Amino acid sequence: MSTKPNTTGSADTAPEELAKAPAKDPRDLPDVSGLIVGVLGGTGPQGKGLAYRLAKAGQKVIIGSRAAGRARAAAGELGHGVEGADNAECAQRSDIVIVAVPWDGHGKALEALREELTGKLVVDCVNPLGFDKKGAYALEPAEGSAAQQAAALLPESRVTAAFHHLSAVLLQDPDIDEIDTDVMVLGEERADVEIVQALAGRIPGMRGIYAGRLRGAHQVESLVANLISVNRRYKAHAGLRVTDV
Amino acid sequence: MSTKPNTTGSADTAPEELAKAPAKDPRDLPDVSGLIVGVLGGTGPQGKGLAYRLAKAGQKVIIGSRAAGRARAAAGELGHGVEGADNAECAQRSDIVIVAVPWDGHGKALEALREELTGKLVVDCVNPLGFDKKGAYALEPAEGSAAQQAAALLPESRVTAAFHHLSAVLLQDPDIDEIDTDVMVLGEERADVEIVQALAGRIPGMRGIYAGRLRGAHQVESLVANLISVNRRYKAHAGLRVTDV
Repeated sequence: MSTKPNTTGSADTAPEELAKAPAKDPRDLPDVSGLIVGVLGGTGPQGKGLAYRLAKAGQKVIIGSRAAGRARAAAGELGHGVEGADNAECAQRSDIVIVAVPWDGHGKALEALREELTGKLVVDCVNPLGFDKKGAYALEPAEGSAAQQAAALLPESRVTAAFHHLSAVLLQDPDIDEIDTDVMVLGEERADVEIVQALAGRIPGMRGIYAGRLRGAHQVESLVANLISVNRRYKAHAGLRVTDV
Repeated sequence: MSTKPNTTGSADTAPEELAKAPAKDPRDLPDVSGLIVGVLGGTGPQGKGLAYRLAKAGQKVIIGSRAAGRARAAAGELGHGVEGADNAECAQRSDIVIVAVPWDGHGKALEALREELTGKLVVDCVNPLGFDKKGAYALEPAEGSAAQQAAALLPESRVTAAFHHLSAVLLQDPDIDEIDTDVMVLGEERADVEIVQALAGRIPGMRGIYAGRLRGAHQVESLVANLISVNRRYKAHAGLRVTDV
């Protein structure tokens, strides 16, 4: 019996000779244009700005608020087919639910919506920050980050994190056509992360870039404190681009 | 006596009428071309890459290592007038001292150099990270960050933090002329921060951007874990650009 390596297709074949499926192109993202996007806390500046940009890009958007009337009023201002509802209806009717509530009420809001959010793709974009005379600083959630708190409170949901580094001012400005920013997307399941990346990519100028698992969310959330320092020093609305990608 | 406000220069003058000094342009940075730059841990990939780029840009650079012989060997490889010395001599002879030692020996190395680093501008670029099967993750230094540990150990030095998000591979590649990355610079004293910004700006393609005080260093250091995830997914050498600045 020969001990020479078999070079025609067995397990001994050198790796480069196998007809291996090519690695998935990380820029190859799903079509998400038919998905309904809910925005919890959609009457705040960040939520409203995101709702506006996504709806303008052709996405069906429902704004959620504790008070349905306030959500409907905000939706009316935004146009582009945006609807308003209370948070529970917003979560229930949406495929993707962006969490843009203040950090202050984050845990409580999500706990109350556990049932409505079952099976949903949740996108946490909350930045736990404190402010004092010296500016903004990172808070340290017991779970590690807002996103990890969401994952702990919503075990039946598919929790991801994204949309942290956006300027609410730019998002809401109708005179600005492109948002010159990359969106770092974090999550445990590649398919879910890619849906969020594709959603970010719907907004002109924006790209969704995979940036690790949820355990890396704290620094992404906290970096907003640094961007606030940048904005003060340079009188800017700073965002981030990932180079060489 | 008239109660009409005095409009010719007293404290009653409306603010817009005062000949106020214009706010300092944050892009107006000092000339640092004559300063000597030391790189502690300059034989490691990050330190060596930085030393190479700064020397190539015309800066006088001294590489430091625990073993002077190793530092001199690395300096010889780099050319561009780079010298090698043991860490103590490197610190003593330099105006700006970049700390690029492994996180593992960070505290011990700085403690041993307290005297040599007195009065020096220290630039910490160390990223405290752990690694496991899932990739890289942020460690949590007791002082908050590597930079804050440096500040605690070196009360007589001027501690800043910068140069965290650079690819050692790109820095060391002689075929690459420009490093397409912004450098976030953190520190307590504006004059010190601006020197480090100017130093970063000496490297073609690079800009130094003020990004807050040292208490915001943890997330800047930790973000390297996310960039490692980016690099793995996209087979890239990712860096960051700050937009709208």
